[in-house]
Amino acid sequence: MLNMILKEKVEQAIKLLNEKKIDTWLTYVRESSINHDPMLDLIGGPNCTWETAFIINKDGDNTVIAGSLELENYQSLGIYKNYFGYLKSIKELLVENLAAKNPSNIAINFSKNSVLADGLTHGMYLILNSYLEGTGLEDKLVSAEEIISALRGRKSQTELSIMKETIAETLRIFDEVTEFIAPGKSEIEIANFIKSKVNERGFGLAWDEDHCPAVFTGPDTQGAHSGPTDRKVERGHLINIDFGIIYKGYCSDIQRTWYVLRANEDKAPEPVQKGFEVIRDAIKMVADALKPGVQGCEMDDIARNYITSLGYEEYPHGLGHQVGRAVHDGGGGLFPRWEKYGNAPYLLVEENQVYTIEPRLTVKGYGTSTLEEEVVVTKNGCEFLSKPQKELMLIKG
Amino acid sequence: MLNMILKEKVEQAIKLLNEKKIDTWLTYVRESSINHDPMLDLIGGPNCTWETAFIINKDGDNTVIAGSLELENYQSLGIYKNYFGYLKSIKELLVENLAAKNPSNIAINFSKNSVLADGLTHGMYLILNSYLEGTGLEDKLVSAEEIISALRGRKSQTELSIMKETIAETLRIFDEVTEFIAPGKSEIEIANFIKSKVNERGFGLAWDEDHCPAVFTGPDTQGAHSGPTDRKVERGHLINIDFGIIYKGYCSDIQRTWYVLRANEDKAPEPVQKGFEVIRDAIKMVADALKPGVQGCEMDDIARNYITSLGYEEYPHGLGHQVGRAVHDGGGGLFPRWEKYGNAPYLLVEENQVYTIEPRLTVKGYGTSTLEEEVVVTKNGCEFLSKPQKELMLIKG
Repeated sequence: MLNMILKEKVEQAIKLLNEKKIDTWLTYVRESSINHDPMLDLIGGPNCTWETAFIINKDGDNTVIAGSLELENYQSLGIYKNYFGYLKSIKELLVENLAAKNPSNIAINFSKNSVLADGLTHGMYLILNSYLEGTGLEDKLVSAEEIISALRGRKSQTELSIMKETIAETLRIFDEVTEFIAPGKSEIEIANFIKSKVNERGFGLAWDEDHCPAVFTGPDTQGAHSGPTDRKVERGHLINIDFGIIYKGYCSDIQRTWYVLRANEDKAPEPVQKGFEVIRDAIKMVADALKPGVQGCEMDDIARNYITSLGYEEYPHGLGHQVGRAVHDGGGGLFPRWEKYGNAPYLLVEENQVYTIEPRLTVKGYGTSTLEEEVVVTKNGCEFLSKPQKELMLIKG
Repeated sequence: MLNMILKEKVEQAIKLLNEKKIDTWLTYVRESSINHDPMLDLIGGPNCTWETAFIINKDGDNTVIAGSLELENYQSLGIYKNYFGYLKSIKELLVENLAAKNPSNIAINFSKNSVLADGLTHGMYLILNSYLEGTGLEDKLVSAEEIISALRGRKSQTELSIMKETIAETLRIFDEVTEFIAPGKSEIEIANFIKSKVNERGFGLAWDEDHCPAVFTGPDTQGAHSGPTDRKVERGHLINIDFGIIYKGYCSDIQRTWYVLRANEDKAPEPVQKGFEVIRDAIKMVADALKPGVQGCEMDDIARNYITSLGYEEYPHGLGHQVGRAVHDGGGGLFPRWEKYGNAPYLLVEENQVYTIEPRLTVKGYGTSTLEEEVVVTKNGCEFLSKPQKELMLIKG
């Protein structure tokens, strides 16, 4: 399966080089288990120890240059056309192969805007420049950001079908945890229950295990991106969980919200119910508007303005991000116009990108209401990949 | 334990800044589960999503600046003195905190020579420069290579005691696999046996699971850095395995060699026995010479010259590397003077560094003879951390 995706992605890259008017794209890595260029997984294959170059040209010709002891690891995959091994220095083979097509530009993996297009370290950039010095090629280097964003963002049918399975497995675990949650259980116990299911089924966690899953019960919790504590579920708590798995190399990222009924309640109190519905409706409003050609920041506006117009504080993060092999994937995102997001809020949404939609709000005295759904952008709109949570789930106290 | 090491390492870093005449050291990361600066694990802590800065000054003052949702993840560790959170941009806090000490130089994590000192991506380098533009600080940036190499290389007593445990657990698995190896078993079966022990005991693998362990049986195998195949163990084969685990955050890396007796044999044939002894003796010669102040390339010379003087081909890799949190760790290594190793062969060996010693040779018609031992450099010499393999292990055919 991995092999099929590598093949699809290298072919897609050749088309993208033509679309984006890039002659040659170089992915240049070393000791990739330490400094791991995320593009290696998508167009390269296994990790390397010594300097390794993946060269893709817009005419369809492509080449791997690797340490001689590691060349076979790539050659056996059969994705590229040409393979060269070296013993003492990659320099000569690298310069020769880059010069071969006399490219007017060479894209390399650096980017201020996109982490996923920024796998080239500064030291490797300096080494590359020292190799190219005097060849004229050192003046042709440009960012591969646009190629990488499109390549990661525009999912193939193989990728989408894996991602649907990944989400289905995630929702199955959410169903199981709904049975497990009860007053007296701690955030850590709930997180461990989820992790045991993940291990049992041989999945990976989509992000760091110290806050995947993130479990929050009740008011005054830390909020997003922190780990579960020994705080216990109580009657009258809003509970929310942020969780995703890695399955067949692809991530999921879903959030769900529950309310724990108090002795005298058969439904959630009005502010809790309303807090849930506002989030649910904000997601629907965004999904109705999301389609190719819109900007991510316009989508963030829809949810942020709706939530604040009702008197809630704005959520302290972006509305949503792309998902793929990385849980935060692709170039553009459904982000506000904040400096830390670089140009990502302004990029146009494209067909076959997968986004999360994950607004949040605080219901004072009860906890956090937050949902996170995943959608795929279609030709004229978008479709939910996760069955959206339509009703607040109630836990009997 | 992790917490204690973080604390020790930040304290050690302050001393190193004084020793290396660096005023301020900045580790600057974002989305560190994707582009993971390896220094984060040693002086930072958990992964971050948003831009995060770890600033250590030679006067002992130090600061973390993180996205407000993630600040608590670092604050709760209590390693640093000052903590600042931001919502929309790190720029102002970062510039202000870097300027505070009016440093004459600011070390950042880029290096042509050392992968472990090269965790800053080129895009992050450009962002940092854009933030610093016009402050004068942009001209003070220097490589943190020397600090990082010393900090990773010079192990604390806590680190050394963990590494001894890690090696002991590894050798225990080697003992078990010695009982398991038999004619008819494939390289993949042997690798899976080892992996089952690793999983059973909750260890990690020290490098990519597709070639950890690497198992080679008989003549004409691929050699180092490729994965096990369905080739079966036969009588008259030399077998060698390269394997390491991660335990309490630290790696091991050990190789062992076996010979499978033929029907009429009660010992290995002379060329096999000799091939083993040459490797064993080469390791001893290096261990006798290894001490603070020598250059790694001099150590490589000793083994390489000894092996080639006896008519064997030279091994197509370095003699040994440092080990630590990463399996290929530290700055300098026991490397030949090849361009791909940069300045690493020339750096002086220091006390409390941990090195592998791993020469290899081919015994024609039988397979590969290779051992890999780990040693720690002491005040006047070195000590084996792994009980060295003194005799060729014989498998009954």
